[in-house]
Amino acid sequence: MRLKSVLFVLGKILFATTIILLLPAICALIYKESPIPFLVPAAISLGFGFLLTLNPKKEDRSLFAKDGFICVGFAWILVSLIGSVPFLFEPLGLSLGDAFFESVSGFTTTGSSIFSNVEALPKSILFWRSLTQWFGGMGVLVFLLALMPKSENKQSRYMHLMRAEVPGPSVDKIVPKLADTARVMYGLYIALTLAETVFLLLGEMNLFEAINHSLATASTGGFGVKNDSLASYSAYSQYVVTIFMLIFGINFNLFYLILLGQFAKALKNEELKTYLAIIGVSTAIIGTNIFLRLYSANPFEYSFRHAFFQVVSIVTTSGFSSIDFNVWPSLSHVLLVLLMFSGACAGSTSGGIKISRIMLLAKNGKREIKYISQPKAVMSVKMNGKAVDNEIIRGATSFIIMYGAIFVISALLITAIDGVDVVTGFTSVATSINNVGPGLGRSGPAENFAFYSVFSKLILCFNMLAGRLELFPILILLSPTAYKKQA
Amino acid sequence: MRLKSVLFVLGKILFATTIILLLPAICALIYKESPIPFLVPAAISLGFGFLLTLNPKKEDRSLFAKDGFICVGFAWILVSLIGSVPFLFEPLGLSLGDAFFESVSGFTTTGSSIFSNVEALPKSILFWRSLTQWFGGMGVLVFLLALMPKSENKQSRYMHLMRAEVPGPSVDKIVPKLADTARVMYGLYIALTLAETVFLLLGEMNLFEAINHSLATASTGGFGVKNDSLASYSAYSQYVVTIFMLIFGINFNLFYLILLGQFAKALKNEELKTYLAIIGVSTAIIGTNIFLRLYSANPFEYSFRHAFFQVVSIVTTSGFSSIDFNVWPSLSHVLLVLLMFSGACAGSTSGGIKISRIMLLAKNGKREIKYISQPKAVMSVKMNGKAVDNEIIRGATSFIIMYGAIFVISALLITAIDGVDVVTGFTSVATSINNVGPGLGRSGPAENFAFYSVFSKLILCFNMLAGRLELFPILILLSPTAYKKQA
Repeated sequence: MRLKSVLFVLGKILFATTIILLLPAICALIYKESPIPFLVPAAISLGFGFLLTLNPKKEDRSLFAKDGFICVGFAWILVSLIGSVPFLFEPLGLSLGDAFFESVSGFTTTGSSIFSNVEALPKSILFWRSLTQWFGGMGVLVFLLALMPKSENKQSRYMHLMRAEVPGPSVDKIVPKLADTARVMYGLYIALTLAETVFLLLGEMNLFEAINHSLATASTGGFGVKNDSLASYSAYSQYVVTIFMLIFGINFNLFYLILLGQFAKALKNEELKTYLAIIGVSTAIIGTNIFLRLYSANPFEYSFRHAFFQVVSIVTTSGFSSIDFNVWPSLSHVLLVLLMFSGACAGSTSGGIKISRIMLLAKNGKREIKYISQPKAVMSVKMNGKAVDNEIIRGATSFIIMYGAIFVISALLITAIDGVDVVTGFTSVATSINNVGPGLGRSGPAENFAFYSVFSKLILCFNMLAGRLELFPILILLSPTAYKKQA
Repeated sequence: MRLKSVLFVLGKILFATTIILLLPAICALIYKESPIPFLVPAAISLGFGFLLTLNPKKEDRSLFAKDGFICVGFAWILVSLIGSVPFLFEPLGLSLGDAFFESVSGFTTTGSSIFSNVEALPKSILFWRSLTQWFGGMGVLVFLLALMPKSENKQSRYMHLMRAEVPGPSVDKIVPKLADTARVMYGLYIALTLAETVFLLLGEMNLFEAINHSLATASTGGFGVKNDSLASYSAYSQYVVTIFMLIFGINFNLFYLILLGQFAKALKNEELKTYLAIIGVSTAIIGTNIFLRLYSANPFEYSFRHAFFQVVSIVTTSGFSSIDFNVWPSLSHVLLVLLMFSGACAGSTSGGIKISRIMLLAKNGKREIKYISQPKAVMSVKMNGKAVDNEIIRGATSFIIMYGAIFVISALLITAIDGVDVVTGFTSVATSINNVGPGLGRSGPAENFAFYSVFSKLILCFNMLAGRLELFPILILLSPTAYKKQA
């Protein structure tokens, strides 16, 4: 590890965090609430940011791939810690463990909460929860890159950061310069978030509700401002949120293609087609299942709407709920848990394994079976008509195995430590590692995560961070070789 | 596929099946029951065996690796079909679906049953169930190899068969000639089975009970002759069965090493040490868990014995039960389900993923994390001090991913089709693909599998076969390339 370079980047990130923290302070002033809970951590991060970037020598700032992962891992833990400070103040007065859980759940766009009554929370705190999701969705380091002056934009230095933070098996720069890529991404992100706000304002939501729900939709985060998430809103608002969740589950590179007028190329994308097919088929199955089993007294639109909402909410790992799906039949439960793991498209703000990674693994599996017949044949796995590098496939296979191992071991620990039933324990971890939000059983959409012990909460935090950063930036922090000094 | 060669081998296997079917016929005569249910399928397999081996041209009989897998896949389906015939006769009169399920469950050493009252079954049928497990445990094709005259033993021809049938990431011949290897394996198998029979006779079991339990222990199958499995037997008998299950979970190659006097080398085996550690730690955790939560009124030996029995029964995928562990706490449940997947050592009669494969994957995972720090370093994964070929690691990673995919898709289908609860659906498939026997919930140790629909039973059969044959021989039958004609 090049300690000085890592510390320098962490300092820069603290500056970005300061900026982020000023927004809820402004919100507090508007609603005549205290801005102190936000100004204190803003001051702390400004101070430490200043200290860490004092380092004068320019040549110390280059980063190896390893350092990129380490930076991202530490940055997310640091930002989550600072982000938990507002929850420590009265009237909330959370313990540090609970505050950290809520903050990690926000930045990782999970959306699991320890609050049972969010309607009683100060408006500035609600806004802060939504903001942590919004910045966490596109990435705190990508935000830093977007802010950087062009002169500082050394690709070789920061590409590793972007690689480590943006989800998916392979990351493309959509424009040649990295800071420009970051700016294009954030530009699209802001535009789409605003579009949703406008559509929601056309319904029954007020400005505060519309902004918060848009921030939490854009990031596929799922924090709401009502205790029953979106259940008490109109069908119109539920459809708007569903459509925008679906949109934010699409690879942002495709939006850029569309901006450039390359519609045809964007629509030919294999992952997109699979994503839409998964949503269509799952909605049809669950809609029919709940209509026949539960809601046959209502018109079919009722079952369709809730099935569509819940399928999109879970597959994009948003975690909003339009109804308590904890009471749905087993078939729907199993399908929803499967969708948690699939996640949506790579390069979107969604969590989970990502559809393109699952497609790679499925295609590779087919190839393995063919290898038995033709052991000496050279066969390549193709995506969008192009052969995929074997290193990427190797990465995807390692990823999925470690993902499975972390999931199973964490679920075992939580079930063991807190003695919860198997469904609650396993879906709590599933919803955390996939950054969804609600699980089933005692962690269902009508419940919260307050009942877990501190130890279990820390395991869930680990899973949320590991899931959001796609394992390696968090796992590398546990590896002793990471801390070896490098010239 | 070389059709003629495949058919020739299938014909040979039918001969072997005929021999196996004569044993319960003799048992029927001893107990004055009808031998007809066994003589009819024996005649069928003899007839077809004769037809298929008529092929006169010697040079047609060579097999490619692919043909080895296809042979094994078809052979197991064929043998299971013939093995289901005895269940069709009165007084049982099962439907073909149920009979096939029972037969597949036997040959794959799973031990799930559709009978609710096994004590009412004819003795010859009980013996047949135990025998299917015993031959399925070491392998029907290995049995065929062991029977072959030395002159027919062409290594190049039959090595593929053995590779495809013997479990584990890599198969070693323990002696230079293949038929000799098969004979040594069956010799050891018979000797250990007899040893257990003697130990059980020293307890309260009669000869019939002792033989049946020994056959089902040796194969890690788990079919019993009592409705409550081993729960009503003495602590002595339970300990004997536990110790022998543990022994049959060890790689048979190690027994051969011990026979040759190489104790030290056998004991240094990494997989064996991990296997014993897993059993020790799991027994300690579950024993303490059930003692504190359920059985504190009894002496600790009671909790220890049942924990030890159940841990060994599940990790070796035997599936005997000494108690209804369905009522145990979540922690114990989760741990038992994990042990189902681990399975015992490669090259044993146990099912599951196998410990050495999991060790390979864990070591490979560690290497992947190190690669981030040192992307250009050449690091090899070592087992027992030797570097493991990367092809074997690739095989293990593909294996585990397909295993996971088959498990999840099957569990989804079963839960969907039969509307069972998630725990029942998932553990039914887990117990099938891992060849264990009992699951949890409605598929628990005090229950049976009769309530499932025919379609679900066929999915469970597919899982049992796929698990026993470690996927590829069954998956290749689904691949169109398998049926292409080859010169």
